[in-house]
Amino acid sequence: MSPAPLYVDCDTGIDDALALGWLAASPEVEVVGVGTVSGNVSAAQGARNTIDVLALAGRSWPVAVGAAEPSEGGFTRSGFDGGATHVHGPSGLGGFSAPLAAASPLDVDAAELLISLAREHGGALRILAVGPLTNLAEALRREPALPSLIAEVTIMGGAALVPGNISPVTEANIGNDPEAAQAVLSAPWPVTLVPLDVTLAHPLDEAGRHRLLDSGRPLATALGEMLDFYFDFNSTFYGERRSALHDPLAAAIATGTVRPSVAPRVHVEVDTTDGPGRGQTICDLRGRFLGHPDQPGAHVRVVLELGSDFAPVLLDRLLEV
Amino acid sequence: MSPAPLYVDCDTGIDDALALGWLAASPEVEVVGVGTVSGNVSAAQGARNTIDVLALAGRSWPVAVGAAEPSEGGFTRSGFDGGATHVHGPSGLGGFSAPLAAASPLDVDAAELLISLAREHGGALRILAVGPLTNLAEALRREPALPSLIAEVTIMGGAALVPGNISPVTEANIGNDPEAAQAVLSAPWPVTLVPLDVTLAHPLDEAGRHRLLDSGRPLATALGEMLDFYFDFNSTFYGERRSALHDPLAAAIATGTVRPSVAPRVHVEVDTTDGPGRGQTICDLRGRFLGHPDQPGAHVRVVLELGSDFAPVLLDRLLEV
Repeated sequence: MSPAPLYVDCDTGIDDALALGWLAASPEVEVVGVGTVSGNVSAAQGARNTIDVLALAGRSWPVAVGAAEPSEGGFTRSGFDGGATHVHGPSGLGGFSAPLAAASPLDVDAAELLISLAREHGGALRILAVGPLTNLAEALRREPALPSLIAEVTIMGGAALVPGNISPVTEANIGNDPEAAQAVLSAPWPVTLVPLDVTLAHPLDEAGRHRLLDSGRPLATALGEMLDFYFDFNSTFYGERRSALHDPLAAAIATGTVRPSVAPRVHVEVDTTDGPGRGQTICDLRGRFLGHPDQPGAHVRVVLELGSDFAPVLLDRLLEV
Repeated sequence: MSPAPLYVDCDTGIDDALALGWLAASPEVEVVGVGTVSGNVSAAQGARNTIDVLALAGRSWPVAVGAAEPSEGGFTRSGFDGGATHVHGPSGLGGFSAPLAAASPLDVDAAELLISLAREHGGALRILAVGPLTNLAEALRREPALPSLIAEVTIMGGAALVPGNISPVTEANIGNDPEAAQAVLSAPWPVTLVPLDVTLAHPLDEAGRHRLLDSGRPLATALGEMLDFYFDFNSTFYGERRSALHDPLAAAIATGTVRPSVAPRVHVEVDTTDGPGRGQTICDLRGRFLGHPDQPGAHVRVVLELGSDFAPVLLDRLLEV
């Protein structure tokens, strides 16, 4: 089978870099375009980071800079806040200094790139979104028929039955642009949501980081260096040096490599109020005692559990790049 | 040690009746007054049911009818909706027909009773609230110094890390009067919140119900009959005939008999917006990987786990009445 065409939307910080590494090593997909969005870093910085990380992987996928500001009211309703430098470092790649790659971003913006790729691939294009959903919402606004042109959407975001990471109930990608998330999650395309429930449950430890560092391979070594900074931040809530694997896990589910063991299709609504729940992904999981049956009419699959550990699978693949 | 004086606020349906049975058999507390509130049934019907259940237990605690309507906007913002007859039966006690007891409610309302008892017991009074928090909020409004007159408050309500029961995120007691709940949870008294996280995790099964039915004791037998109806409703989400033990578990924690094994003091806020999270108890449990440390300044203890099974403890005590 030929690889599936994939559009990636990201805000390249450290775990986005891991996801790009995963995709570079994945024969199941062919990345036909990458859009960036303000989140961990600005959309422009994210594009720079993306190009540099891809260069380390020997890839030169087309990269388009996307939305610099959230749809409406994201980032505490006062616009892009400069990103999560405490999590990803000043440039977004921790303490790692990438050699500047020669490539430049495209002239079109990310929403335009996504729409043109969707038309070009006539229903076969998949989307992987691992940042705020601003670009996807903008593409839906410009081309309301977009869902009919897309095979499936995989999103890293949200928190179903676990606490959030930027508020007691809200995860960063969704919380940074709740209006965009609500537009994307309510559009009529099949969505797989990969929330904190699983991404925090499958961390990478120091031994794993050292396998990357010691590999002698350019991208893997760079990722091991970046993760040093990420481990420091992650230790503030894990209580020890390790790293959540948010974006690479979503990438591994998008490539079909990692299969969820519990992932019901249920109704999901994003809280777009100004209340204390703003940005929460409200997933209707009241069927939990009945084995999480799918709900009629629901088109969002919420990943709650994996069948096996993810970190070893990730390492094996990253060491192939 | 002399028993601690306890005020009980309830909306006597079936699990409230179990809680009253628990309290009647508990030497650790002396119930000095009961207020009723519209919730499972109307406040007036709740008082009738309370008096009848107490008569079966050979008790005649003072009962005051409380608020007929929620503070503001509860019950889907259109006032008391007639209660949860699908859960508790038309009268609130399932298919059980209690012999009408002779006693009548007091002339004062529940908030007034609570305030006068608080003054009378000078700081020693405890509160157990197992219905919507309308009466407690009203008492706080009438007597802002109430928290300084109360030893502790135990509340059955909310959902922390599990789905709700009247919306994907909202539990009935809180959701039926979110404004009252926010007033009560933010008042400066020590609160223990007993949410669905634990009440749904400790159900009673058919064998347990039959121990009540076959006991030959008036209250226990009556409770076993009431539970037949409750089991039918509970089976719609449990997938088998059993019963959540919401209110009796809160009672057992209030009497100090059942001790939580995980119950951090954390910041809790009730969603009082009109959004999809209305009525949610937003508990800040982001310290979960650190062993759920208490948060500075927080005065609400959220019960997440018990050290042992509750149903056998409940049965043993109910069979003493």
